[in-house]
Amino acid sequence: MRANYRKIIRITEEGPFPLELGGQLADVELAYETYGSLNARGDNAVLVCHALTGDAHVASHSQDDLPGWWEGLVGEGRPLDTRRFFVVCSNVLGGCYGSTGPSSVNPQTGKAWGLDFHILTIRDMVRAQYLLCQKLGIKKLALVIGGSLGGMQALEWAVTYPEFVGGLAAIATGPVATAQQIALGELGRWAIMLDPAWEKGSYGEPGPEGGLGLARMIAMVSYKSPELFAARFGRKWQGGIPAKIRILGHDSPWAEGFQVESYLHYQGKKLVDRFDANCYLYLTRAMDYHDISKPYGSFEKAVARIKCPVLVVGLSSDQLYLPQEQIQLAELCRRAGLETSFQMLDTPFGHDGFLVEIEAIGKLVTEFLC
Amino acid sequence: MRANYRKIIRITEEGPFPLELGGQLADVELAYETYGSLNARGDNAVLVCHALTGDAHVASHSQDDLPGWWEGLVGEGRPLDTRRFFVVCSNVLGGCYGSTGPSSVNPQTGKAWGLDFHILTIRDMVRAQYLLCQKLGIKKLALVIGGSLGGMQALEWAVTYPEFVGGLAAIATGPVATAQQIALGELGRWAIMLDPAWEKGSYGEPGPEGGLGLARMIAMVSYKSPELFAARFGRKWQGGIPAKIRILGHDSPWAEGFQVESYLHYQGKKLVDRFDANCYLYLTRAMDYHDISKPYGSFEKAVARIKCPVLVVGLSSDQLYLPQEQIQLAELCRRAGLETSFQMLDTPFGHDGFLVEIEAIGKLVTEFLC
Repeated sequence: MRANYRKIIRITEEGPFPLELGGQLADVELAYETYGSLNARGDNAVLVCHALTGDAHVASHSQDDLPGWWEGLVGEGRPLDTRRFFVVCSNVLGGCYGSTGPSSVNPQTGKAWGLDFHILTIRDMVRAQYLLCQKLGIKKLALVIGGSLGGMQALEWAVTYPEFVGGLAAIATGPVATAQQIALGELGRWAIMLDPAWEKGSYGEPGPEGGLGLARMIAMVSYKSPELFAARFGRKWQGGIPAKIRILGHDSPWAEGFQVESYLHYQGKKLVDRFDANCYLYLTRAMDYHDISKPYGSFEKAVARIKCPVLVVGLSSDQLYLPQEQIQLAELCRRAGLETSFQMLDTPFGHDGFLVEIEAIGKLVTEFLC
Repeated sequence: MRANYRKIIRITEEGPFPLELGGQLADVELAYETYGSLNARGDNAVLVCHALTGDAHVASHSQDDLPGWWEGLVGEGRPLDTRRFFVVCSNVLGGCYGSTGPSSVNPQTGKAWGLDFHILTIRDMVRAQYLLCQKLGIKKLALVIGGSLGGMQALEWAVTYPEFVGGLAAIATGPVATAQQIALGELGRWAIMLDPAWEKGSYGEPGPEGGLGLARMIAMVSYKSPELFAARFGRKWQGGIPAKIRILGHDSPWAEGFQVESYLHYQGKKLVDRFDANCYLYLTRAMDYHDISKPYGSFEKAVARIKCPVLVVGLSSDQLYLPQEQIQLAELCRRAGLETSFQMLDTPFGHDGFLVEIEAIGKLVTEFLC
C-alpha cells in the first residue's frame, strides 16, 4: 500500500551531487511522500525529517493505509494540518527506504555501493532535501521539524538555508554530537563489523543479521530509560526466549531470560527485518559528524544565521540527547535574539519519547504555529 | 611477582559444593591474597570483594610488587590498615584469576568447563568465601567491603551470615539488579556469543576476542559518564586508530575516528588480553540474579537479618548503579534500625568512581571503622 504514495525523484539532473567530506555522487534519487497541497505562493510547505531508522512515511494517506511513524502529527485536523500545510517527508540521502545510499547500486560496478559509498554528513542530507524542495516548487518552508537525527537535520536546515526556513522545531537533539553519542554510535557499528556475515560491507542476503540486531539492542537501551525498564519489565522472568526472535539458537544455557532481555532481542530482530546494515553504519557516522558550528567557527555564529522562530523540545528522561543539550540549544537561540520557545517534556519514555509523546508534542507544535 | 603472594586453597575437602540454582562442583579452589595478620581472637579480618573483572590482588604486598586495584585503600597506614587488620581478598567463584570457573578444567572431560559450568549466583560466591574464611581461622569479619559486584557480595554476606559480619560497606551497588543492568549485561553477553570464535563456549586460544572486546566497550560506556566523556574527549579527532588496538583491521573507511572511539577500542583490547569470555558470561549472569530479597520474601525481611553497622556509598554520576539504588538501600537499612552511614560522593567518574575516588572512599571507610 505504501508504494502507492511513495514517489522517487532524481535530484542530479543538473549535475552530480558533491559530498561535504569529499567525493560526489553522479546520480541521486530521493524517495518522498507528500500530504496536502502546495499553495500558489509555494510557502505553506512543512518538511518533516525522520530519525535514524525512519522513512518517508510519516503518516497514513488514507484510511486503509498503514500508519506512519508520526501518525498523530500529520493529517486533517492534526497539528500539521494537511488542509493548511503541504507536508513533505523524504527518506534521507544514505537511507535504505528508496533514497540513494550504500545499499543502492553503484553504476560503475553494477553492485551495491557498500563501503565504496561516500561518507555523509547531515549537511549533505539537508542539501539533498533542498534540491527536492526546489523540484517540488517550494519557495519557503513554513516549518522544518524533526526529532533526534531528524532534529539535527531541521537545525542544520535553519542554519544552512536561513532565507528558506520560516520555522524550526528541533526535538530531542542538540547543536553537536557529544562524545557519549559518538561512543554509542561506535558500539553499534562495531557490532555490525564484528559479524563475519558483514564481509567488510559486501554482504548479500541476508547480511549481518546478528550484528545489526545487536547494534539495535545497544541503541534500544540508550533510547529508553532506566525508569521505563524498571516499570515495564523490572525483574520479570520470561523463561525461554522464543527462538524466532533470537539470532543465535536455543542451545545455550543463556536461552532463558528476563523479560527485558526478550524485549531487546525482539527489537533487534525487528530492525534486522527492515533495515540495511551498511546504511546503519553510514547514518550513525553522519550523526557523529553533526556539529552546526563547523563551517562558521562557533555555535554563536552558526545560530546567528537563523532567521525564524525556534521551538526546542527536550525529553526529561532522555539518556542519549541529554536535557542540558536542548537547554544549551535554546540558550544559544535566545542569546542570538531569536523568538525561542523551549519546553522540557516530563516523560518516562527516554529518547524514544519523541515518537511516543505525540499528543504533547502536537500541542507544542500547534501553539508554535499559531 | 604477583604469583608469589597468591595462594590457592581447596574448599571442597569436606564434600562437593552445591550451587544455589542446581548442580554441584566436586572440586572448588579459590585464589586469594592476604595482608597483615589474623589476631588470636580471629576477629580482625576484613574481606574485600572485587568487581566484575577484578582479582585477589587488591593491593601490593611490597615495594617491588605491582599495585592492586584498590592500592590506596589497603596497607600500612592506609584506611584498611594492615597493622590493625587481616585483609583478605579472593578471586570469586566463577572467576578466571585462579579460582574455579568456566575456564577451569572439568575433571570429567579433561577440558575447560565452558558452558557445562553451572550457573552461579552471588550467594554461591559468598558461600565459597565463607568456607575460605573458615579455613583461614577467621571467627568474624570486622568488615566486608566492595563496590559494584563486590558490593553485591558484601551485601549478600551481611544478609546471609549476619553473625559473622561486624561491618558492611556497600559501594556503588544496590539491593537488586535492575532491568537496566540486566539489559546492559545481555548486550555484553550477546556480543561475545555473536563472535563465531566463541564456538558456543568451547573456544581454544585466542577465543572470541572481538566479542569480548565489544562487550567491554559496551560496559565502558555504562561505567563512565557523559560529562566525563565530554570533558576528556569531547569531539577530539584521533585520526587513524592504531591497528594494534583494533580487532578488525584498518581496511575500512571507519578506521579513522574520534578520540572517544579510540579509547573504547583500547579498553576493549586491554580486557581481551587479560580476561576470559565465558567467565564474563557467567559473572554478568550472576549479577543479573542479584536480589537480596529472594530467599526471604522481601527486601525488608532480608535487611532485617543484618546485625552490623552499614556504610552505603553512592556515586553522583553513576549511570549503571543509579544514586536512587543506594538511597533505597540506605533507607532499607535505616528502617531496619541499623546504624547506617550514607554518603553520595560527588564525582564525574561515573560507576568507575569506586575505583578512582580512593581518597574520598578511604576517608569514609576510616570514619566508619573508628
